[in-house]
Amino acid sequence: MKKVIKNGVIVTATDTYQADLLIENGKISSIGQNFNETGAEVVDANGCYVFPGGIDPHTHLEMPFGGTVSKDDFETGTIAAAFGGTTTVIDFCLTNKGEPLKHALQTWHAKSKDKAVIDYGFHLMIGEMNEDVLEELPTIINEEGITSFKVFMAYKNVFQADDGTLFKTLLAAKELGGLVMVHAENGDVIDYLVKQALAEGKTDPIYHALTRPPEVEGEATGRAAELTGLANSQLYVVHVSCAEAAKKIAEARRRGFDVWGETCPQYLVLDKSYLEKPDFEGAKYVWSPPLRDKWHQDELWNALRTGDLQTLGSDQCSFDFKGQKDLGKGDFSKIPNGGPIIEDRVSILYSEGVKKGRITLNQFVDITSTRIAKLFGLYPKKGTIAVGTDADIVIFDPNVERTISAETHHMAADYNPFEGMKVTGEPVSVLSRGEFVIQNKQFVGKLGQGKYLKRAKYNLSQTEPTKSDELTI
Amino acid sequence: MKKVIKNGVIVTATDTYQADLLIENGKISSIGQNFNETGAEVVDANGCYVFPGGIDPHTHLEMPFGGTVSKDDFETGTIAAAFGGTTTVIDFCLTNKGEPLKHALQTWHAKSKDKAVIDYGFHLMIGEMNEDVLEELPTIINEEGITSFKVFMAYKNVFQADDGTLFKTLLAAKELGGLVMVHAENGDVIDYLVKQALAEGKTDPIYHALTRPPEVEGEATGRAAELTGLANSQLYVVHVSCAEAAKKIAEARRRGFDVWGETCPQYLVLDKSYLEKPDFEGAKYVWSPPLRDKWHQDELWNALRTGDLQTLGSDQCSFDFKGQKDLGKGDFSKIPNGGPIIEDRVSILYSEGVKKGRITLNQFVDITSTRIAKLFGLYPKKGTIAVGTDADIVIFDPNVERTISAETHHMAADYNPFEGMKVTGEPVSVLSRGEFVIQNKQFVGKLGQGKYLKRAKYNLSQTEPTKSDELTI
Amino acid sequence: MKKVIKNGVIVTATDTYQADLLIENGKISSIGQNFNETGAEVVDANGCYVFPGGIDPHTHLEMPFGGTVSKDDFETGTIAAAFGGTTTVIDFCLTNKGEPLKHALQTWHAKSKDKAVIDYGFHLMIGEMNEDVLEELPTIINEEGITSFKVFMAYKNVFQADDGTLFKTLLAAKELGGLVMVHAENGDVIDYLVKQALAEGKTDPIYHALTRPPEVEGEATGRAAELTGLANSQLYVVHVSCAEAAKKIAEARRRGFDVWGETCPQYLVLDKSYLEKPDFEGAKYVWSPPLRDKWHQDELWNALRTGDLQTLGSDQCSFDFKGQKDLGKGDFSKIPNGGPIIEDRVSILYSEGVKKGRITLNQFVDITSTRIAKLFGLYPKKGTIAVGTDADIVIFDPNVERTISAETHHMAADYNPFEGMKVTGEPVSVLSRGEFVIQNKQFVGKLGQGKYLKRAKYNLSQTEPTKSDELTI
Amino acid sequence: MKKVIKNGVIVTATDTYQADLLIENGKISSIGQNFNETGAEVVDANGCYVFPGGIDPHTHLEMPFGGTVSKDDFETGTIAAAFGGTTTVIDFCLTNKGEPLKHALQTWHAKSKDKAVIDYGFHLMIGEMNEDVLEELPTIINEEGITSFKVFMAYKNVFQADDGTLFKTLLAAKELGGLVMVHAENGDVIDYLVKQALAEGKTDPIYHALTRPPEVEGEATGRAAELTGLANSQLYVVHVSCAEAAKKIAEARRRGFDVWGETCPQYLVLDKSYLEKPDFEGAKYVWSPPLRDKWHQDELWNALRTGDLQTLGSDQCSFDFKGQKDLGKGDFSKIPNGGPIIEDRVSILYSEGVKKGRITLNQFVDITSTRIAKLFGLYPKKGTIAVGTDADIVIFDPNVERTISAETHHMAADYNPFEGMKVTGEPVSVLSRGEFVIQNKQFVGKLGQGKYLKRAKYNLSQTEPTKSDELTI
Repeated sequence: MKKVIKNGVIVTATDTYQADLLIENGKISSIGQNFNETGAEVVDANGCYVFPGGIDPHTHLEMPFGGTVSKDDFETGTIAAAFGGTTTVIDFCLTNKGEPLKHALQTWHAKSKDKAVIDYGFHLMIGEMNEDVLEELPTIINEEGITSFKVFMAYKNVFQADDGTLFKTLLAAKELGGLVMVHAENGDVIDYLVKQALAEGKTDPIYHALTRPPEVEGEATGRAAELTGLANSQLYVVHVSCAEAAKKIAEARRRGFDVWGETCPQYLVLDKSYLEKPDFEGAKYVWSPPLRDKWHQDELWNALRTGDLQTLGSDQCSFDFKGQKDLGKGDFSKIPNGGPIIEDRVSILYSEGVKKGRITLNQFVDITSTRIAKLFGLYPKKGTIAVGTDADIVIFDPNVERTISAETHHMAADYNPFEGMKVTGEPVSVLSRGEFVIQNKQFVGKLGQGKYLKRAKYNLSQTEPTKSDELTI
Repeated sequence: MKKVIKNGVIVTATDTYQADLLIENGKISSIGQNFNETGAEVVDANGCYVFPGGIDPHTHLEMPFGGTVSKDDFETGTIAAAFGGTTTVIDFCLTNKGEPLKHALQTWHAKSKDKAVIDYGFHLMIGEMNEDVLEELPTIINEEGITSFKVFMAYKNVFQADDGTLFKTLLAAKELGGLVMVHAENGDVIDYLVKQALAEGKTDPIYHALTRPPEVEGEATGRAAELTGLANSQLYVVHVSCAEAAKKIAEARRRGFDVWGETCPQYLVLDKSYLEKPDFEGAKYVWSPPLRDKWHQDELWNALRTGDLQTLGSDQCSFDFKGQKDLGKGDFSKIPNGGPIIEDRVSILYSEGVKKGRITLNQFVDITSTRIAKLFGLYPKKGTIAVGTDADIVIFDPNVERTISAETHHMAADYNPFEGMKVTGEPVSVLSRGEFVIQNKQFVGKLGQGKYLKRAKYNLSQTEPTKSDELTI
Repeated sequence: MKKVIKNGVIVTATDTYQADLLIENGKISSIGQNFNETGAEVVDANGCYVFPGGIDPHTHLEMPFGGTVSKDDFETGTIAAAFGGTTTVIDFCLTNKGEPLKHALQTWHAKSKDKAVIDYGFHLMIGEMNEDVLEELPTIINEEGITSFKVFMAYKNVFQADDGTLFKTLLAAKELGGLVMVHAENGDVIDYLVKQALAEGKTDPIYHALTRPPEVEGEATGRAAELTGLANSQLYVVHVSCAEAAKKIAEARRRGFDVWGETCPQYLVLDKSYLEKPDFEGAKYVWSPPLRDKWHQDELWNALRTGDLQTLGSDQCSFDFKGQKDLGKGDFSKIPNGGPIIEDRVSILYSEGVKKGRITLNQFVDITSTRIAKLFGLYPKKGTIAVGTDADIVIFDPNVERTISAETHHMAADYNPFEGMKVTGEPVSVLSRGEFVIQNKQFVGKLGQGKYLKRAKYNLSQTEPTKSDELTI
Repeated sequence: MKKVIKNGVIVTATDTYQADLLIENGKISSIGQNFNETGAEVVDANGCYVFPGGIDPHTHLEMPFGGTVSKDDFETGTIAAAFGGTTTVIDFCLTNKGEPLKHALQTWHAKSKDKAVIDYGFHLMIGEMNEDVLEELPTIINEEGITSFKVFMAYKNVFQADDGTLFKTLLAAKELGGLVMVHAENGDVIDYLVKQALAEGKTDPIYHALTRPPEVEGEATGRAAELTGLANSQLYVVHVSCAEAAKKIAEARRRGFDVWGETCPQYLVLDKSYLEKPDFEGAKYVWSPPLRDKWHQDELWNALRTGDLQTLGSDQCSFDFKGQKDLGKGDFSKIPNGGPIIEDRVSILYSEGVKKGRITLNQFVDITSTRIAKLFGLYPKKGTIAVGTDADIVIFDPNVERTISAETHHMAADYNPFEGMKVTGEPVSVLSRGEFVIQNKQFVGKLGQGKYLKRAKYNLSQTEPTKSDELTI
């Protein structure tokens, strides 16, 4: 059935204009004025922005970590995402050394199928790069449509890969058309600092931050960037938390390296002092990299503004405060890392970024959706509002004021790290391929309606037109 | 009369997609698929890109300089611009110290009226900042719609203003909503070097470059950026020619300053060695700042790619080789500065930038049109393709190969600095507010059809929707 | 008469060792152990360091400024200097535009003759660079022995020279063997900010600092360094007060430019908050450049440690609080700039630098004496302890603790900006060319015993041996 | 027996002056003029410089490497060193994982005893940092007098340690008073590039350089510096070969980190093109890090001039071209790394540095001797000429011109990498603790006369006077 979204102000990464949208077969077929399409369902977006659906490039749904499993799965996680204005997630698929990559994918397909209410894709972790992995990679990329690969420089003896694996992954990605993602922290140094702190009886959550200082992130980011330059490959640095790392990315880009950086809402609005909350509440704010001193926030905002950082991920990896986070009572190193962020990612960037004049409205769309689609092979199907694209759409009321709270959020976790924070703006209705998932702030979707997305290869030029192949560059 | 542009691939600063455009009353009224609009003129853009018309932010048409007058006026200049895919120019209006600014504007309106075939606006030169100027400025901005002001840091004893004038102009612009532009070269040092060279009998064109080394541009750029930061104002550095200056702009942006940079086609593809051509031919390549050593080109391209430079101007200021450039025979300092560039600006960026993989197709649109519209208060009327915007449109064949030559160009000057250069891509048809100016590579416009544009104030957020004021931020 | 200084620990910019010194004819003739020189006067330096006499490269004695004259003249100023461990001063000789440079020198010789108790030289101000000045310079350098020239980038309409004069002075210095010194602040910007502040009724001393922000110093320092690089000349930046300026000097040196930087004790230990002292006491702390926020101190210390800054001057220019500083009551711009520092320069660097582990003992000697002698053509006559050098010697007790106070200082000014500051270390005896000026903390010198020093040309290699000319490089 | 060195020009890191030196009991007892010491042997140094003996901080004598052993041992190596003006070497003692450090020391003492003709000390390699090593370290430092420890970031699966070991070594050094040295290259990346090159049949010596690009050195240098800052410890980067690494050291120092850098003669005067010499001669120039493109030389010289690099080591590790270097025929990775440099280190820096005006004569002494003594706990016994120091002295004729050649050198290796290079200046006589080792260019020493040096702890202040302990800071 056709839909017409009328009277809204459409916003893309470049443009802001009032027009009507006609949706047919799940795609945008026409954009114009005063549409009177017979038989179409009319959706009034008067007073609202019409955004392309948000894309969350960084989620960990139902992921095993530290002896427990992250609380939100593909059901609660994607529903919450939709409430928050996100219509696509790319989740991290963990692999096990020695096993075929395909096994891990099967596990992740099993987790997501029949649950997701919005479309989704997978990144794949590379734990070691050897002949077996090299042999399997072309299939992963060409048949499974997985074109981004994550290497951990931290979590010694767990996920951490050495520089050789990182370098070989960069070379393979270059050759095959993938984008390498890094968790950039120096795991060796952290390992020592954590053991030392515990040996000295320093067990409170704040020591999580103190044993992972910004320098270990800056160092690893610089190292990964250097290796990328050497390999003439492409790199995406996840969850940049501090000025040191942002600076390394900026420098690499100045040198002509193809390096990109993502930050997360928590680093933009929370700071290290939260880890000192009494009654073990600091555990709610345990991420890796950790929260930083407050002045880093200004540096991250400026990096978003100037384009030194390009995207916003949630790093969603939620755990209950009771029953999960408290595994780390008496030993901060056992606190599961992560938090429930998927739902508030878009709203926080709008409220703190656009409303406060730190970034433009178009940059907001670019950062939460368009650039992500382009980097991860989803564009132009996803990531923008243009004729021919999927009708993944968010109708957003920019004026409503509300307070973030675990009492009202839709994530499964029993707390919200932004509890009590006032934000301006809220999604009213959210469509995935032309179908409502959220309508007038109510969930109206169906479990399993989200489809797995095979993604295109990494392409710096990002310019394929929708149909007319002969014009591509 | 309505027009439908069919089968083209529409490109904006963000998007690339195949769709049809419906034009009514000079504006884009609808974008969709398979339009069958009764009574509309159908324009087939099959195999072509459909770009928003280029905006040239930097022209000097019929400008007095060094005892002569630049050759192309608003007639030949705007016709050539249109042939090249440019549908708007912003020309520099020179003022005289001690005279009301308005007088200068009257002169410029007289030059342009009944001649321009595309729309145009004016920047205004500020030679000194005093009480009279301060008093007149609000009228200039609010009534005349002139919102950008140029200060020269070079041309000692001619245009050069001191740092006090620059600083006061920055403060006034901040208060009133203007954008300050600078010609950034240290005029005092150049003045000495030129006199010294001439005293030593060094009179050939190459000494034009040797007496204006990149350091004098880097220094002045850094100085202007510092003053901008101090004034908490906004700055646009015209014609960035070298790595030193680009680096200063990048550093200023990293520090959170609102500083922007423009480069020009000549700096991207020509180099200093051209000034050594025999038989005084070097004079054809005399610009200020001058052409640089070849390695600077890579730095400028990378700056465009990473966003450290944001726009491309032509600095069009053409002189005949015979009869004008030769005023400088025997004394390089008397060679009129400038050249005929307005026609080839867009094509060169497409061919050397997009086709050669240095920038994306969308960046190309941003650099030649969209960002310029946003910075200079022309957006959303100009600078993009979206419902509601002016139908300033270029239908561009990306595959045609051709050779730039004075024999075929439409500028009045008797030579072309890019003579013999092969480029790929050419505008086929160009529309201004829905009317053809160029149709199938023929000029079909009318003198005087271009309108003067009153421009909006400088607004970093650049996000006003077309109509729905209540949604602006 | 011969003297033997026994049992002290001799310190040079490189070495620290216990030995005896034999002084003959005002020079050091031998260094050894257990000297038993018949007929020599024995000076016991047991428990003391034996330093080369300090050299103050930056004083303004009896200088006219803002309608008054600096309080300390060559009598009180050099006596106080000697008490503080300084045995040579280089004072700034102000010139008047349009008058021969020689006139100014005559004035300065008249001020100093028959008064100075330690040796002295002159720097010469260059207010404008024209044919007359160029013609006179060789005589000034070769006959008068004046080899350093100061250009002011601030004090608009008073001392300020334009970039053309600075550049031409750099070129002349390069050719003739001089060192160019700059007061690096952007005078145009300051001029505006001062007028604006006064117009807004902001007249208190703190506005002196607020109208000369660090950025104006950083900008001017960078500009002067660029011009030096272009001229392939040499530059000495006086009174570096802030991180911004220190960074510009470091960058210039990295680029291979011959640029040096001096800081002053006030910038190392005082900060901007002193300007807010009540009852107009802030006026005591009015220098240009002004005191900065406290964090700049760390940057300056680090720059001294790493060699990015190389020397310490006092910028001695004292005014009484009552009767002079109060000229600026109700108008901060009329407060005479400067303070009484000459006496405490050496002690503060020792106490705050060496004792607190920020620099080494040898660096202390280099910074207060040796490097200055080398830069300003006084080495090896002055600036070190070695066989053949002038016996300008300070016997310094490193353990005595004392409190700086106007009640005990020997300067003529009626206050001391370091009032109440505790320092460790004090000169016990001070010799000039082998004669006591200070003996056991008592002045025993004679007015006029100080001699005018003709200085050698600037020589980066600084390696002339004392006698053996054939070994020079 | 006493000696008097007469008529020479004494040079220290600060001073240059003509004087006589009196030597008693192997130490300098007096410095003065016209000494007529009865019974003393008179050495005429007329026309010569008198330098403190050079200290080579980086040698590998009789070291096993790649299945062979470096050619020069403590006999030929120290004799050649003495001919070249070096009177102290600090050799690298290799350890084996799992064995007590002491075992390695015993081996090294056995190699050196009864052979060395000049004094020597040892650095100790740390291959892994564990409880055993930690327990043994205090003895090594306090009883064995070994206060510098080397960690390899390259040579994967051979010497390479991980970041954890480096970080723990930095922390231990901080606590115990040691200086950590790093070979800074990213071994993982090199390992891959080498295997890849060999797999592609790229076996010639030039591939040694191509598989170790400057970026891997820059990266590792930056990483080591970051870890040093985090540990608040001290670092000495050996054999800096390229601009990238020098820049990282400069940046670290700007940030206040206690980081030092050494370069080597080969990086200052040879370049990568040497590796392309035909007939496998490129193998003569195989070092790690490798020779670089020529432009790096300017950057290294400038870093020495500004103090961003502070010392010069030889990295002496010689192999015969025939019989040793040729182990790598057909496989560049099997070419033993290193060359015979120990003899020409001092002469090359004098000739290329001082004579060509790149550094001053005093800097030359600092770089080849004084700073090394201070950093490695040998000062003031070694490293300068002052009353009380060891009489390790070089009488150097600065004017003699000669050509470096394997035919005339005193090293055991069968080639000289500087073959045919003309240098100005040569040691005439060399004394170790007052005894001639070289006299009038003849070896007159005795095997075994060199003594093992227990070194003091690392002390940034480097200021202990020779005797008077109460004055130390």
